[in-house]
Formats: sequence, C-alpha cells, structure tokens
Amino acid sequence: MSTIRVTVWNEYLHEIQFDQVAKIYPNGIHNCIGDFLKEAGMDVKTATLRMPEHGLTEAVLQDTDVLIWWGHMAHHEVADDIVQRVYQRVLDGMGLIVLHSGHASKIFSKLMGTNSGNLKWREDGEKEILWAVDPGHPICEGLDEKIIIEHEEMYGEHFDIPQPDEQVFISWFAGGEVFRSGCCWHRGKGRIFYFRPGHEVFPIYHMPQIQKIIINAVKWACPRKSPDVTYGNTQPIVSVDSKVEGVTGNPGLQE
Amino acid sequence: MSTIRVTVWNEYLHEIQFDQVAKIYPNGIHNCIGDFLKEAGMDVKTATLRMPEHGLTEAVLQDTDVLIWWGHMAHHEVADDIVQRVYQRVLDGMGLIVLHSGHASKIFSKLMGTNSGNLKWREDGEKEILWAVDPGHPICEGLDEKIIIEHEEMYGEHFDIPQPDEQVFISWFAGGEVFRSGCCWHRGKGRIFYFRPGHEVFPIYHMPQIQKIIINAVKWACPRKSPDVTYGNTQPIVSVDSKVEGVTGNPGLQE
Amino acid sequence: MSTIRVTVWNEYLHEIQFDQVAKIYPNGIHNCIGDFLKEAGMDVKTATLRMPEHGLTEAVLQDTDVLIWWGHMAHHEVADDIVQRVYQRVLDGMGLIVLHSGHASKIFSKLMGTNSGNLKWREDGEKEILWAVDPGHPICEGLDEKIIIEHEEMYGEHFDIPQPDEQVFISWFAGGEVFRSGCCWHRGKGRIFYFRPGHEVFPIYHMPQIQKIIINAVKWACPRKSPDVTYGNTQPIVSVDSKVEGVTGNPGLQE
Amino acid sequence: MSTIRVTVWNEYLHEIQFDQVAKIYPNGIHNCIGDFLKEAGMDVKTATLRMPEHGLTEAVLQDTDVLIWWGHMAHHEVADDIVQRVYQRVLDGMGLIVLHSGHASKIFSKLMGTNSGNLKWREDGEKEILWAVDPGHPICEGLDEKIIIEHEEMYGEHFDIPQPDEQVFISWFAGGEVFRSGCCWHRGKGRIFYFRPGHEVFPIYHMPQIQKIIINAVKWACPRKSPDVTYGNTQPIVSVDSKVEGVTGNPGLQE
Repeated sequence: MSTIRVTVWNEYLHEIQFDQVAKIYPNGIHNCIGDFLKEAGMDVKTATLRMPEHGLTEAVLQDTDVLIWWGHMAHHEVADDIVQRVYQRVLDGMGLIVLHSGHASKIFSKLMGTNSGNLKWREDGEKEILWAVDPGHPICEGLDEKIIIEHEEMYGEHFDIPQPDEQVFISWFAGGEVFRSGCCWHRGKGRIFYFRPGHEVFPIYHMPQIQKIIINAVKWACPRKSPDVTYGNTQPIVSVDSKVEGVTGNPGLQE
Repeated sequence: MSTIRVTVWNEYLHEIQFDQVAKIYPNGIHNCIGDFLKEAGMDVKTATLRMPEHGLTEAVLQDTDVLIWWGHMAHHEVADDIVQRVYQRVLDGMGLIVLHSGHASKIFSKLMGTNSGNLKWREDGEKEILWAVDPGHPICEGLDEKIIIEHEEMYGEHFDIPQPDEQVFISWFAGGEVFRSGCCWHRGKGRIFYFRPGHEVFPIYHMPQIQKIIINAVKWACPRKSPDVTYGNTQPIVSVDSKVEGVTGNPGLQE
Repeated sequence: MSTIRVTVWNEYLHEIQFDQVAKIYPNGIHNCIGDFLKEAGMDVKTATLRMPEHGLTEAVLQDTDVLIWWGHMAHHEVADDIVQRVYQRVLDGMGLIVLHSGHASKIFSKLMGTNSGNLKWREDGEKEILWAVDPGHPICEGLDEKIIIEHEEMYGEHFDIPQPDEQVFISWFAGGEVFRSGCCWHRGKGRIFYFRPGHEVFPIYHMPQIQKIIINAVKWACPRKSPDVTYGNTQPIVSVDSKVEGVTGNPGLQE
Repeated sequence: MSTIRVTVWNEYLHEIQFDQVAKIYPNGIHNCIGDFLKEAGMDVKTATLRMPEHGLTEAVLQDTDVLIWWGHMAHHEVADDIVQRVYQRVLDGMGLIVLHSGHASKIFSKLMGTNSGNLKWREDGEKEILWAVDPGHPICEGLDEKIIIEHEEMYGEHFDIPQPDEQVFISWFAGGEVFRSGCCWHRGKGRIFYFRPGHEVFPIYHMPQIQKIIINAVKWACPRKSPDVTYGNTQPIVSVDSKVEGVTGNPGLQE
C-alpha cells in the first residue's frame, strides 16, 4: 500500500476564541491530529474554515485519500457548493472520518439522509466509557476492550442516524446515557466513519488509544482501486429474444 | 390497525403526452395504483406534479401514513422546498414507497445519501424475472417465489444505493443484467421501500402480483405510535460524580 | 390477522427451588408471561423443561406461531433433538423470542452461529436504563424512549452475537457497562428477537413497559404466508444457448 | 502487514475419481488455488479430507490466518469434532473463505445458523455473469465491474443464508436465475466470505479475475490483533449506589 494522503479539516474557531481550548490545542485540533497521523507514516495536509474555499479546493480533494472533519459552532458557514464537492468525492471513493460535533455538519447529514444533528448532549465533563462491540473489526486493532475517558461532553441516544453498516463502539456516560460512538457506513464507493469523542475543552486527541482509533480508521477508509463502473443506456450482453420495438417512454431523457 | 391513509403521487406527464401510455393508464398511473389500494381497504388520495405545491401541502402530508412516488422525466421540476417537506415527514415517521424511475428523484437521492440516479438502463422491453430473496419478509406475503414480467425496461447494476437494510427482491434481465429491485431502508422514524418494476409503456401496475407487493409494502411502511424522543441539552438521570465546572466549549450554541 | 398462537417455554427450576423467586412468580415465569399475552388477545400455551420432550412436541411446534424461551441454569439439559426440531421450525417461519439468560441456550447459539453465551455479568441488582435506539421500529410502539429498571442483573459487552439485522434497544448499567439488549435477526423464513431484561429475582415481567415490548415482539415475529420456495435440481426458465453436454461433476448427489 | 498464512482445504475426491476433473486440476483444486496465492506472496499450506484429522489439526489451525474451504460430495464425511475445532478458530479470529459447493458444508451451515445447503442448481454449464454490486469494497480491488464465465453450474435463489453483512457480488445465469454470489459475514472475531464460482468440471480457478477475487478476499478476511475480551462475572468499573444484597438467582452456575 502506498502512503495514505490525509487532509485534516478543522473549523479552527474555538482554539482562537477560547483560552482554555488554546491551552489544549495551541496549534489547533487539526495540527494535533495531523501530527500523530504523520508519525504513523501518513502524508498529511490541513485545511480550515476561513481559508478560501475552506481549504477544500478541487485539487486538494483530488489529492486526498481520506478527509477528517472536525466542526462545531459554525456548520452553517460551510458553503453548500463545497459540501457538494466533498459529497461527490466521497461517493467517488474518498474516505471520510467525522469527529465529535461533526455529527451536525452539512456533509455528514447529507451522506446519512437523516437529521444526524439530533441527539442529547450535556457539557458536565462527566465520565465516558467507550466499549468495543465488534472486537474483530480492523478499527479495533491494537486496542483494549474499553477506553475510559475521565471527563467528556455527553452525547446520548436517540442519535438520528441510519443503522450503521458496522457498529464498532458504544459509549456509556455517568449520567445514564448510551451512545453509538463508532459507526461505519458505505456510500457510493466511499467509506465513512463517525467517531464521537473529541470535545474541544478536554484533551481527547492527546490520548494514545484515541489516536490509535483514528489511525486505524484512516486505514480502513482508504480507497482501493475499484472497478470502472458504467452508467446509463447500455447494450445487452447476451442477445434478447423478448425485445419489443418502439418503446418510447423516456424521450431523450436520462433515466 | 386503523385504516391506512395513502397518498399516491405521480408526475402525470407521460399519460398526457404519449398515446401508448394513455392507453394503458387512461386515468393516470396514480389512479390505477389508487384503485387497487382502495380495493385493499385503504384510504387513498392522489397528487400530481402540476398541482399547486405538487399536491403535497403540509396538510396533505400530515394526513398521510404512506406516500407512493412515481416520477420519470421531470424530477428537476419538483421544488426543493417540497422535497424538504416530504423528507422531514419521512424522518418523522411517514412511510415512502418509491417506484421504478423514482430512483432518480430528488427525494429518494436525498434520503439515500448517494447518487441513486446512477444505474444502467435499456428500453428494449425485454423479459424480467423478479426473485424473492427474503421469502419470510412481510412484503412477500402471499406471493410466488418469482414473478415473470414478459416485457420491461431493464435496470442494471451497479445501482448506487447504500446496502439495503432489508433486501427483498433481485431481478434478472434477458440481456444479462441483475438488479436489486426491492429494497428497504429506515431513515429517522420512517421506512422506505424502493420497488423497481413500472415502466409506463408496459402494463406493470395491472399485474396482480405487482399490486400485491405494493399493498404489502404500504402495510410494512405504515408508521406506528412511536416513542416521543427528546433532543438537545439534557439533565443527567443519575447523579454524576465526575462533573467538571466551567465547561464552556459550546458558548450558547445548539450542539 | 387471525389470533396469534404463542407457546411460552420456561425452564421452571428457579421458581421451584428458590423462595425468593417463587414469591415473584408463584405460577412460574411462563404463566406470568402467558397471562399478559392472553390479555393482549393471544392464544397461549406453556411448556417446561421437565415435561416429556420438554413440552415441545412436533404437534405443539406446528401449532405455534411464536415461541418464547426462558432458560438459565439447565441449558445443557435440553435435548439436542428437541433443539434441532425448534431450529427447523424457526427456519420454516416460526418466530422466536429469547429472553434474558436464554442468550446461552443451545437454540439461540445455534441460530446465531456464534458463542452467544459470551458476555459479562454481575448480580448486584444495579440500575439498568434501556434506551430505544430505533424509535420507529414496530417493537417500540407505544413505549417511552427509555425504561428505567431500578434493580437488575448486569449484562455487559462484548456480547458475542452477529451484528443484529435491526438494533432496537441498548442498555446502560450503573457499574459502567453497556449492552445490546434488544436485537432482531432473520434466519430462514423465521424472525428472532433477543430481549435482555428478566432476571428471576427481580419482578421484571410485572413491569407494564416490559410486557408491552414482549407483546410488540410477538406481533413482529409472527410468520406470514410466505412464498413456496423450491430447492434442488431445477429446469431453466428461459432456453439456454450456452449449454454444455456431459457435465458430470456431481454424480447422483444432492448439491 | 506480515505474510498471511493460508491453509487451502479441499475434499480432493473428484480430481481422483473423474478424468475430466483431473485434466483441469491435475494436482487438485487445492494446489491450483495454493499456487496463485503463493505467487501473491502468501504462505500456503494445503489439507485434504482423507488426511488424518482431515489435515486440520489444532497446530495447523493455530498456524492459519485464513482457511479456504472447497467440498462437494462428501460433506457428511467431515468429522463433527473437526468442524467444531474450525468453528472455534473462526470465532477466535481466523478468516474463512467458503467456495462454491461449500455452501452445503457443515462448517458453513453452522456459522450461518441456517440451512445454507438450500438453493437451486443445474449442471448445464450455462453462462454466468458476476456483477460487482459494491464496487468500493476491498474484495473488488483491481477488478472489472462484471466477470463473464462462459460455462458454469447454475446456483439460484432462494439461497438460505442470513442477509450478508456486506453484499459484494450478484450473479446472472442464462436460464433465468440470480444468486448472491459474493457475501461477507462477521462471526465472533472472524470474517467469512462465501464465493460461488468454482464447479470442478470447469476451469474457474484458472481465470485471473477469479484468482484476484480470492486473493483480495484472503486479505480482507485476515485477522488483526484484536482487543483481549473478558467474559463472565465481573466487577463494576464505577461504584454502584443501586446495589441489592443477597441476589442468589444463579447459584454457583456460569451465566
């Protein structure tokens, strides 16, 4: 396998506006994540909201195997045409890893086909225990069966997502909630992983087990050289006896 | 179970523009479908593209348990705000049955999160054989294990959909293609069934076995009285020891 | 829909051997469950381990739409030929609802294809909160979004099951664990629902919301009149040009 | 990734008993498959039915990452304790690739929890077209969107399997049938791929695209270093207020 090319996208507003976040991520969440991915041998770029085209030009996306998405308070500022561009790249095979509050992003909701922004939340910094429910899954490689996070924002069910194609982690929270925290879906030729932990006021992305999960997820989501697929009007492969002449139901329009 | 309220939506252009379609469906595809649903004891309304708001007012949708969708050559004419309205109703629990070329409709693609318009097609009127691959499924009730359609438009894989939550039918075509013709998904509290057969120049919806499938699908997709779900900021159910004071990562914004 | 015929199977040992269980279920768990199913309009039989053929004769099973299974300390006493008989009936369409410690029964493990007996457990009688994660599912009809059980035995992940076809409930436990507590699978023409709550020393089956879930599950698992399916050597439906003479790879043996 | 250790198991009876099979596979199907896997850089062993313990000793299985299974006319000769041994290794993480008539093997049926031997078949040597329906799947890497096999035994639906976790290929047959030909499941920590083509009187395993699929499947099914999972009676992770004394429902028995 050649080197995986990852682009880490971050809203990059909290780190600038809030001291307590800046202390944890002095170079931004994107650079924290980028650093451990680089150490894992990946080719890493970063992009942020306030860059032109949010840093996600056609050229950047074409050069990206897996895109990581962290956003929280400015989902509405992401331009619809950039969302459409990312969407098309995922359907064409690019992997997408959506972190934490990215559940409410335009791109995630669009790929899910639901109001994925709907969930319960509470910022008490309570304990979370993340359980591996599919321990044979590639994203669980090298982990323990549970990860204890001493202080985190709570997310609780019901989480309005389609049932995951692969359910990898489920979280427990001290206040009484559960949450489907690690979920895989396939869309078009692309693969999507949603991973819950990562509130900006807790040093989640400094935890080695969390880093390991994100590294594993990038490998899992990385596209393969998939078949060229043709769409549209097509000739039969074997000769057809049952043919009818003069079918004109679809006059010059693409199906 | 009380009477199921169905709205049959039809583009209703082919029947007006093409004699060969008008002969098969003199009152429109919507009335043909509506008639056999009424006979099955359902409460039926119809709606078409050229009606104000495409016949899909808020009142109509609130009064609909299951919406049936047939569209083909004018998907682009369906207004985005009406699509959004139908989408929200599905997420809130309304069933949706998408027929034939409805695969390329805005509403279906939006609920799938893919380019569901992508498939192969051919209007040779060749033979289709529809196989039940989940014979225990409620939508297969009272059917034979296969349905032979002498002349139909071909749809072939790859069909760009998420893997169905429940795969009910797979079709064979004389020219060499296969197609996932009967597929179920859950989105929000709603249930969606895509059913392939139904090209307008063939009398598909006059076939009793096809009618039986659509009747079964309406019953399957009909919403139940589901739990009231709360979203947003929430109080703990059990008291939390691990609480942290002063978490301010999400300043006044909805998660 | 005609009256659903349910057989409630119970090991029926704890109620006889332990006073604290007998106080809660003086007529046995099977009769407690049978009573509320009768009240819901169902036709109910019961059967227990120490009856001849464990009460599950061919005649009883042929006369059963949905079988409910409660067993705990004597799974090994269930005869293999009776397990095989139940297994075949499920594949032929009978619904099966496996309760609580039935996860470790021979019949459940055989239908799962895994060591479904593998999980964590703890008999501290701690709090359980059962969350609906698929609120639009028929088994959630008429429920609240969560059910609080003040005292229950804990079951924790990893639970060694195939990923459910439909994940309906996930539980939270006071001690820090989560569990996939309500899970649906399809096997052959049959439908299976596993439902976790039900330790014998707590009055779980007296709770109205728990009763509602079991009633809903019986309705969901009830078989339909499904297609007659043929298996084995078969003639082509359309004539085949590509036929080869003298293929003898499979000499007189069933495939 | 270190070298993948594959064991190719073959019944190895047809090649000895039938000249027309011996001509195609002079060293047995197992060596044909073993040869192209070796060329792909894998560490290959073979094992056959008539070897002691069918060649599948505990030592061999412990030394196997992925087991390939080809059997046809002597499924009943495979000893139950060896089936149990393979079963346990799959649940512990070993990959398993079941080829063609292996659908009716004891091990496959046991892992499925169904009568997976149930399907339609016909030995006319007709045309098969294998379509990729999940082109982004790792098992499709480097393929075309369809593979045409000029002459093959037909397998037709209904195929009595649980709905695949990942549906990769669907086949078309000249005589009018369809078949789910490439299917993935997870069981315990193990991964299973069923792949249909491979009747012994046709040179299927000499086709480069078929070889590519089997190579891809071995890579997909190869186990990872997964978390150590603990089962059984366990201590709480966080302290429990709701504890009840004297719970004795499960007296000295493993849950």
